[in-house]
Amino acid sequence: MDIKDHIGEIRAEFPILKRTMSDHPLVYLDNCATTLKPRSVIDTVVHYYTYLGANAHRGDYEMSAQVDFAYEGARKLTKDFIHAAKKEEIVFTSGTTESLNILAMSITNTWLQEGDVVLSTVAEHASSVLPWLEAGESKGIKVEYIPLDEKGRITVENFKKALHPKVKVVCFAQVSNVLGYEAPVKEIVKIAHENGIKVVVDGAQSIAHLPVDVQDLDVDFFCFSAHKMCGPTGIGVLYGKLEYLDALSPIYFGGESNARFSKCGKLKLKKTPFKYESGTQPIEGALGMAAAMKFVDKIGKENVHRYELELKHYFLEKIKDVDNVKVYNADAKSGIITFNVYDKGELIFPQDVASFLNTKGIAVRSGEHCAKLLGEVLGVPGTCRASVYFYNTFEEIDKFVLALKEASFETCLDIFF
Amino acid sequence: MDIKDHIGEIRAEFPILKRTMSDHPLVYLDNCATTLKPRSVIDTVVHYYTYLGANAHRGDYEMSAQVDFAYEGARKLTKDFIHAAKKEEIVFTSGTTESLNILAMSITNTWLQEGDVVLSTVAEHASSVLPWLEAGESKGIKVEYIPLDEKGRITVENFKKALHPKVKVVCFAQVSNVLGYEAPVKEIVKIAHENGIKVVVDGAQSIAHLPVDVQDLDVDFFCFSAHKMCGPTGIGVLYGKLEYLDALSPIYFGGESNARFSKCGKLKLKKTPFKYESGTQPIEGALGMAAAMKFVDKIGKENVHRYELELKHYFLEKIKDVDNVKVYNADAKSGIITFNVYDKGELIFPQDVASFLNTKGIAVRSGEHCAKLLGEVLGVPGTCRASVYFYNTFEEIDKFVLALKEASFETCLDIFF
Repeated sequence: MDIKDHIGEIRAEFPILKRTMSDHPLVYLDNCATTLKPRSVIDTVVHYYTYLGANAHRGDYEMSAQVDFAYEGARKLTKDFIHAAKKEEIVFTSGTTESLNILAMSITNTWLQEGDVVLSTVAEHASSVLPWLEAGESKGIKVEYIPLDEKGRITVENFKKALHPKVKVVCFAQVSNVLGYEAPVKEIVKIAHENGIKVVVDGAQSIAHLPVDVQDLDVDFFCFSAHKMCGPTGIGVLYGKLEYLDALSPIYFGGESNARFSKCGKLKLKKTPFKYESGTQPIEGALGMAAAMKFVDKIGKENVHRYELELKHYFLEKIKDVDNVKVYNADAKSGIITFNVYDKGELIFPQDVASFLNTKGIAVRSGEHCAKLLGEVLGVPGTCRASVYFYNTFEEIDKFVLALKEASFETCLDIFF
Repeated sequence: MDIKDHIGEIRAEFPILKRTMSDHPLVYLDNCATTLKPRSVIDTVVHYYTYLGANAHRGDYEMSAQVDFAYEGARKLTKDFIHAAKKEEIVFTSGTTESLNILAMSITNTWLQEGDVVLSTVAEHASSVLPWLEAGESKGIKVEYIPLDEKGRITVENFKKALHPKVKVVCFAQVSNVLGYEAPVKEIVKIAHENGIKVVVDGAQSIAHLPVDVQDLDVDFFCFSAHKMCGPTGIGVLYGKLEYLDALSPIYFGGESNARFSKCGKLKLKKTPFKYESGTQPIEGALGMAAAMKFVDKIGKENVHRYELELKHYFLEKIKDVDNVKVYNADAKSGIITFNVYDKGELIFPQDVASFLNTKGIAVRSGEHCAKLLGEVLGVPGTCRASVYFYNTFEEIDKFVLALKEASFETCLDIFF
């Protein structure tokens, strides 16, 4: 499918695209933060509220059995979506952040010893670095950083250089949320495994945009959220190879994750994945996520990726002769555009640029993008980030470029909204 | 408001009540497991998807500011709903289970020493006991159990008897999810505080049914979920006195909960409650929960509670001369009816009873109800549990009683659905 030829139909599936912002048609370019929801996702959530209604795994009646069927169906669909080997390898969590925290704590507790090292990079999201720093502190685990190349990318060469016998885990994003570079996951995994290193991949920014095959990549763990892929907030996935999920332990305990327990604390957990899912799960979230996966699969992630790159190249072409805009990641093969605007060579504070764009109906993100360690690589205190998805259009890029041309200290400062 | 006089209007707000189960009109009596959702909650969630759409606390544009406003508005409303002193005392979590796990881990890490004791009861939900057992294990913290009285109730007398200088925390449910007895929270809190003991209350089964005033009760922590109160799944609350939430630490780390951090792990967290809310929160969940609170408040929890007791008394009256049904908690002042059915003096397996009721369109729960330690008090391997809410009717109780009268080994066994 060529998305260009179907963009009208696709946009019609997103009710929110009818809204305005600052009295302009909405131009939503903050898809790295969260994505808009198509009708099929909304309808699925509403269907849970208006028809299914019950809790999962708990009742002895038809309605509850219907919920179980739908909930476990969502797990099966998720397995297919990332091509996991077994549906037991899919743990539902509240999102990427919880998935990464569970892994950092459980891996640290189970597999790491004092002096062991976890490799990260300075471009990682706070949710990918902080859990390791915190979980490892009391046990004397160190986090070391794979040096990025001059563009801010993780490379196989630099990964190799960072290796030493104490390295037991490497955790990095498949696509960086600041610069949008895709990491050479498969190559890194191969070398990591040769060195007995477990690989945790943060898929928050890749899952919605790239075909992901966890078996082909051979990653040990892969984490993502639904809301960055047209799905609900509050639901995400922790994928892990079954033997590893079996070996690790949950962090939270409670109803439905235990088979039995005694007063003195003897606890028998249920099998993977249920041992990781204590308490009532975000049921409509899981069903909504499954609907989002179906929607994205119907469009086709190859098509999504190609179209995003077309939009980005169109932007880069248009902005070529606009010398007040500096793009930091022109060659990143993703729909993420990281930039700053200058006025006579002086940086306009990114938040002011974002606020100015807002007055034109354009939503972009400014700041450190939760990757607070990256500033030292880019040499700026922050950036603006525009990120496209398959429902954006070339006309929206035109508006965006036009607005950037107008951005100056005079137009950007003192804007209230 | 007398709910009886408005039951038609109230039921009309719940689209799911139009559905059938096993070809009968749905009689939903599993409100302890989860509750049905009114139109206003559904509309609020849909409004997020079709109009608000953005992430919270992250953007520099109007849409995102609107989300912030709504999200923090939900926090303010939650504060009012439980009469907390400050809105900073409201932490959004994924539900009661997460709230209780955060507290068990953080209190154990921060305040407890080897040999310290946490008091629980054998009637507590797995999500209330297991977190303490697990968090305390490596540190040598013991869980002890306040003896229940002959009916399975927690009493002030027994609480006093369980006290000794090593007791540092008591954690119990305001309303038990198996027997529905209301604990004497205020009296226990007073004595606990006189003895320097912190009080954690599991409000999962009380929040939707009783007026809750955390300041009047003077509890230190109070936990609940939205989905047991007409709200979405995947969202709940951890209430704590501000000085305590300030003193404790989050369990998960990541984006939006930190103010800054360095490569070597020096971390500066944001203030309470934000330090506890890493990653994208369940935004539509929080907004939906706020809508649920408004809905329940409009009906009035005093009215809800009175009406539930009327339904329960009506049931007890009707069942009086039905000698195959044994009710374990006739005097519990809640809408929870815990029972078993016998045939010529022999127990019919509770799950078979529930399956039989399903064939009549009636949804009840069977089993251990996540309180696996209670069996020894009741002397049975499990029970059936019917739990009413304000949308149930006297006619539904009639159907329920009629079905119970028909329950026998012959009618209950070998039912497939």
